[in-house]
Amino acid sequence: MLLVTFSVDGGPARPGALDGGEVVDLSARVTGIPALFGADLPALDGPRVPRDAVRLHAPFRPGKIVGVGLNYVEHVDESARALDTHKELPTRPVLFGKPATAVVGPGEPILHDGDLTEQLDWECELAVVIGRTARKVSREDALAHVFGYSIVNDISARDQRRSGQWFFSKGQDSYAPFGPAVRTADEVPDPQTLALGLKVNGEVKQKGNTAHMLFTVAELITDISSGMTLEPGDVIATGSPQGVGAAQNPPQFLRPGDVVEATVEGIGTLRNPVVDAR
Amino acid sequence: MLLVTFSVDGGPARPGALDGGEVVDLSARVTGIPALFGADLPALDGPRVPRDAVRLHAPFRPGKIVGVGLNYVEHVDESARALDTHKELPTRPVLFGKPATAVVGPGEPILHDGDLTEQLDWECELAVVIGRTARKVSREDALAHVFGYSIVNDISARDQRRSGQWFFSKGQDSYAPFGPAVRTADEVPDPQTLALGLKVNGEVKQKGNTAHMLFTVAELITDISSGMTLEPGDVIATGSPQGVGAAQNPPQFLRPGDVVEATVEGIGTLRNPVVDAR
Repeated sequence: MLLVTFSVDGGPARPGALDGGEVVDLSARVTGIPALFGADLPALDGPRVPRDAVRLHAPFRPGKIVGVGLNYVEHVDESARALDTHKELPTRPVLFGKPATAVVGPGEPILHDGDLTEQLDWECELAVVIGRTARKVSREDALAHVFGYSIVNDISARDQRRSGQWFFSKGQDSYAPFGPAVRTADEVPDPQTLALGLKVNGEVKQKGNTAHMLFTVAELITDISSGMTLEPGDVIATGSPQGVGAAQNPPQFLRPGDVVEATVEGIGTLRNPVVDAR
Repeated sequence: MLLVTFSVDGGPARPGALDGGEVVDLSARVTGIPALFGADLPALDGPRVPRDAVRLHAPFRPGKIVGVGLNYVEHVDESARALDTHKELPTRPVLFGKPATAVVGPGEPILHDGDLTEQLDWECELAVVIGRTARKVSREDALAHVFGYSIVNDISARDQRRSGQWFFSKGQDSYAPFGPAVRTADEVPDPQTLALGLKVNGEVKQKGNTAHMLFTVAELITDISSGMTLEPGDVIATGSPQGVGAAQNPPQFLRPGDVVEATVEGIGTLRNPVVDAR
């Protein structure tokens, strides 16, 4: 099931499912996507609205967002060249936090504040939505804690790292576009086979496949949950393939007026405009 | 008012206020401390329970916790020696995230997992509780967004930094002891005059004063909110004075059986035992 949170004509946000060119309104069955964590999926049954007639929102407000850095080999290379990170492959997942206040939905603006950054960058990432509490789970059991998969665009102001810490550079308002939908885990038999990529103004910048992750989704869940409880509604942003703006030749960063489209196979395309926020 | 969340005999957690040797039960007036964010404080009026008869809990579950690193001069020095951080004073606040899942209350155990760390360290910090949404606030207006002040012990597994990122080293379960109380802002005319310190097993390890912060509470709120909205219930952990374990000679880290007491003037003492979590 491809779950969304949608509204019609400025009305309240409600849960639904994409079915071909229509959105099935599930609001008579569930209060929202979080009500489905750990529960049985509802029947695909309810009033239908044409896809074009709805506005999609972020699927839900996450608890914590655990970001993973340097999780694709080629991106480790380009990051060492362009961003002063280590050139050796990390031996353990490189973890950082993004706050829920950074989340925006599909179509919502990425805020470009020229007073704060001249290096606003993109990162298309497979997002893992946790559905069952995970604490010290084994690799074999890890995927049983996944509710579904979505997309996070891990926006970064490269020049706002603080003594190397990424929280402010990656955690500002609008720096976590999230959506447009959540593909439930039953329909993703192997999360390590998904093509993903990103375009800026229609031009391909990133193109990769989750097969090339250094640490798989299951390994990430095992590692994170070894010390940090993952709760239903937490999201793991699993890292970006190569092709970030800082590593373009010459470097390219987002400007007001740009449009960014992050795509993951089987989930959809998360499209956000960049706007001047000064 | 010195607000707490307390329970009696394993009953439900409820809001109260410390008044001398008693806790005034405020549960007939408010549902919990978060209900007071942005609201008038209630009268100190309700059933009274002796302080010794109650158990205190974390005051509330924060939204995001924004940590500040290297915010006291002497700690910048010792950290450069012991922890490979820059020895220059930071020119902008060094920000990192701690997730709400890391929070424990007074008396609750700090989890020592010997499989994950041999360098479990302490950091006594003044915690700022946000009461009103702050976005791009000026230094002059910043303190008007503060609900009150508490204590966070910013526990760190120094050997779990990941390519320099602090999130996993500082974000594990139980790594954010929080409490024991929230002193409302009306009773803290100047947050830059508070003595603070920390003992391990009764021995003084840290002793400082918030007068020596590099970036004041108001400056931190202005800086963070320049890009990241602070919401009611968010907490800023404002950094630690000198005297962390890694900088002791020889280095000293927490072991199961230790007891850590973090004290901030006017708020109280946050006492937590360290337990073996394997």
